[in-house]
Amino acid sequence: MTETARTPAELGALTQSLLDDLALVTDEPGRVTRTYLSPAHARSIDLVGGWMRARGLTTGLDAVATLRGRRDADGGGAGRIVLLGSHIDTVVDAGKLDGCLGVVASIVALEEIARRGVRLPFAVEILAFGDEEGVRFPSPLSSSSAATGTYRREWLDVRDRDGISLAEALRAFGCDPARIGEAAIDPARVIGFLEVHIEQGPRLEDWGLPLGVVTSIAGQTRMGFTLEGMAGHAGTVPMGLRRDAFTGLAEIALAVERIGREGTSDLVATIGRVAVLPGAGNTVPGRVEASLDVRAGADAPRLVALDRIRHQAERIAKKRGLTVAFERHVDVPTVAMDDGLQDAFARAVLSLGLDTRRLPSGAGHDAMAMARRFPAAMLFVRSKDGISHNPREWSDPLDLGLAVEALIRTLLQLAEQERAR
Amino acid sequence: MTETARTPAELGALTQSLLDDLALVTDEPGRVTRTYLSPAHARSIDLVGGWMRARGLTTGLDAVATLRGRRDADGGGAGRIVLLGSHIDTVVDAGKLDGCLGVVASIVALEEIARRGVRLPFAVEILAFGDEEGVRFPSPLSSSSAATGTYRREWLDVRDRDGISLAEALRAFGCDPARIGEAAIDPARVIGFLEVHIEQGPRLEDWGLPLGVVTSIAGQTRMGFTLEGMAGHAGTVPMGLRRDAFTGLAEIALAVERIGREGTSDLVATIGRVAVLPGAGNTVPGRVEASLDVRAGADAPRLVALDRIRHQAERIAKKRGLTVAFERHVDVPTVAMDDGLQDAFARAVLSLGLDTRRLPSGAGHDAMAMARRFPAAMLFVRSKDGISHNPREWSDPLDLGLAVEALIRTLLQLAEQERAR
Repeated sequence: MTETARTPAELGALTQSLLDDLALVTDEPGRVTRTYLSPAHARSIDLVGGWMRARGLTTGLDAVATLRGRRDADGGGAGRIVLLGSHIDTVVDAGKLDGCLGVVASIVALEEIARRGVRLPFAVEILAFGDEEGVRFPSPLSSSSAATGTYRREWLDVRDRDGISLAEALRAFGCDPARIGEAAIDPARVIGFLEVHIEQGPRLEDWGLPLGVVTSIAGQTRMGFTLEGMAGHAGTVPMGLRRDAFTGLAEIALAVERIGREGTSDLVATIGRVAVLPGAGNTVPGRVEASLDVRAGADAPRLVALDRIRHQAERIAKKRGLTVAFERHVDVPTVAMDDGLQDAFARAVLSLGLDTRRLPSGAGHDAMAMARRFPAAMLFVRSKDGISHNPREWSDPLDLGLAVEALIRTLLQLAEQERAR
Repeated sequence: MTETARTPAELGALTQSLLDDLALVTDEPGRVTRTYLSPAHARSIDLVGGWMRARGLTTGLDAVATLRGRRDADGGGAGRIVLLGSHIDTVVDAGKLDGCLGVVASIVALEEIARRGVRLPFAVEILAFGDEEGVRFPSPLSSSSAATGTYRREWLDVRDRDGISLAEALRAFGCDPARIGEAAIDPARVIGFLEVHIEQGPRLEDWGLPLGVVTSIAGQTRMGFTLEGMAGHAGTVPMGLRRDAFTGLAEIALAVERIGREGTSDLVATIGRVAVLPGAGNTVPGRVEASLDVRAGADAPRLVALDRIRHQAERIAKKRGLTVAFERHVDVPTVAMDDGLQDAFARAVLSLGLDTRRLPSGAGHDAMAMARRFPAAMLFVRSKDGISHNPREWSDPLDLGLAVEALIRTLLQLAEQERAR
């Protein structure tokens, strides 16, 4: 029994209504806050699991509280599986979309596939991860890491601000940390992981495109640096005898910006945190502390930019009689998305009559962890003003529907490929 | 009975030993903190008053607790008077010099004049002001303002952090606020006010000179300004679509520095306080708040610089899609020192075999208030590394002695002029 296919607008309206319902499940009345293993997380598992079961999926919770909703292969299949999903935890005072869209879009897509009577020669499992943001515990991507068998045991010992360890929180949630190994999915069986997500940036909006295919998840370097000069009285130390740490930082900040603009592969370079000391209006700054965040869709442009920034900072500091020191170096290499799955997403977008553009993701996502073991790909949905991690986060429901339709068409392509295997 | 004149080294050692004793009088054991009308202020009046009386001066306390030590004119005189001195209050965790030097150097100078048997045709009064810094109450220069008859009555109502009003504190100190008017000195009688003070800056040290004559006390403009851009994710907002408030500030800071360097009359321009918001390493700054402090030895260069800075800030903000707003404007005009007294100081310095250089004062001083009614001048003493308002504040005792000798020779010149009158 097949019914009329829903239009993207209809799919979008359905997706939006489910997202609106999910946004009501919160630990902080009046705003959306749903952190890992919290009461709201438990209620969201009930709600989303109910949606899955109502659509014929078999649900279960793994040892790290990832909700899994499974649809078996039609006709038995060859035991292979396509993984869909994203995360249902949020930052504090979040919007409605972020990870939730990837979960809800997958549910709506499977519902629509069933409505259209489409048969899939592989199982599909929707993963609703609970710990992507790492807000309650400093363990971002821990739940998708468990799905790949790369869970870090030391996460179990980290504690939240109330002193509760992650292991204790899991047990209180009804999960058994000793069984985390069983959450790993056998890579030999996995066709791929597909994650729909809002862009969280302004590029698609700038291009006038509702959807984009992610090429890679940007590598990232985060560090702090300090400039030391000499503090002095703003009235008595003449300009020529100053060693002003802040004007040194200003010159470095413009160099960072210039190097960022000159970079390739969507290089971005940001100074976001700045402390100027001693910080009095009548005192020449003697010391500044600042952060530096450099990301790019490929590793080489990022590492070249870092070298240039360090060289410029040292040159500027020397010229100004300042000392510069770099600290706390965190390097995360770029993770490439699977070429075949990117092409499948791109063909699906093209088949909707839309231009297809590819872009790296500047933010981290579950697909970054999943790509360690499985072919993984992401489809980005246009974000209004690039705003995310904010109640003003918004995408046009039509764009959400287009994403669901593109996901459906991607699954249809994978089905054809699987049958031709 | 005249004795052998002390050398500058001897005068410096004596000055230093008195300063060391005075520095032991503090409200905070272990560091030098002596605020207006505090117990330490009372004890310092006892100590310094005792020094004055031991040297034959007549002492008294005026209605704002300024300690006054008077030496009458030799041979009666014409009723005219030379005023000397500075302040004995300090900032929190101060050094030993600052205002105390001006008081102690005056005492040592009058002692030496007596030892040398020099006769002066005018009275001399040493003023040891108690409220220059404005630390306990927001009333800087209130005691020297009282001496000029320009005391602001609203100061009496301001309260310290314990809720005690300045009027209450004066009464508890044994002073009568109703008699503040009587503290005013008749300008018709005043030959001038001479203040010895450490430079609190590095210029004399840079020039290799122990002493310098102050041309003016710099006018000052202090304001805050805010730049608004748009916050965004440091990973997802490409460089070309950013409206980064901090890189905007960086460009403005370099313009401020350049305008400061290009200015005349020892123009200085400082951004000393900076807040970058939201202030996370992974977020493009959406807003910055900063201070701006501009001073110069004359008003025109300062006002021209301010115009240039505002123009540049607006140009830079516009170019970058930011908005800029200036706030809280405080303007204090430049106060010129008396030409005749400057020349007298300069001749005294030259007579010591020293080069004479003139420089504006970037910081405020009692001489700024005194200049409202009296001819006033300041002699600066070289500061080690330009450090002040800090326990590391230091000047070579020989330089202190040279300042005392220069003050003596200045008084001798004024005596000759007075006799020729």
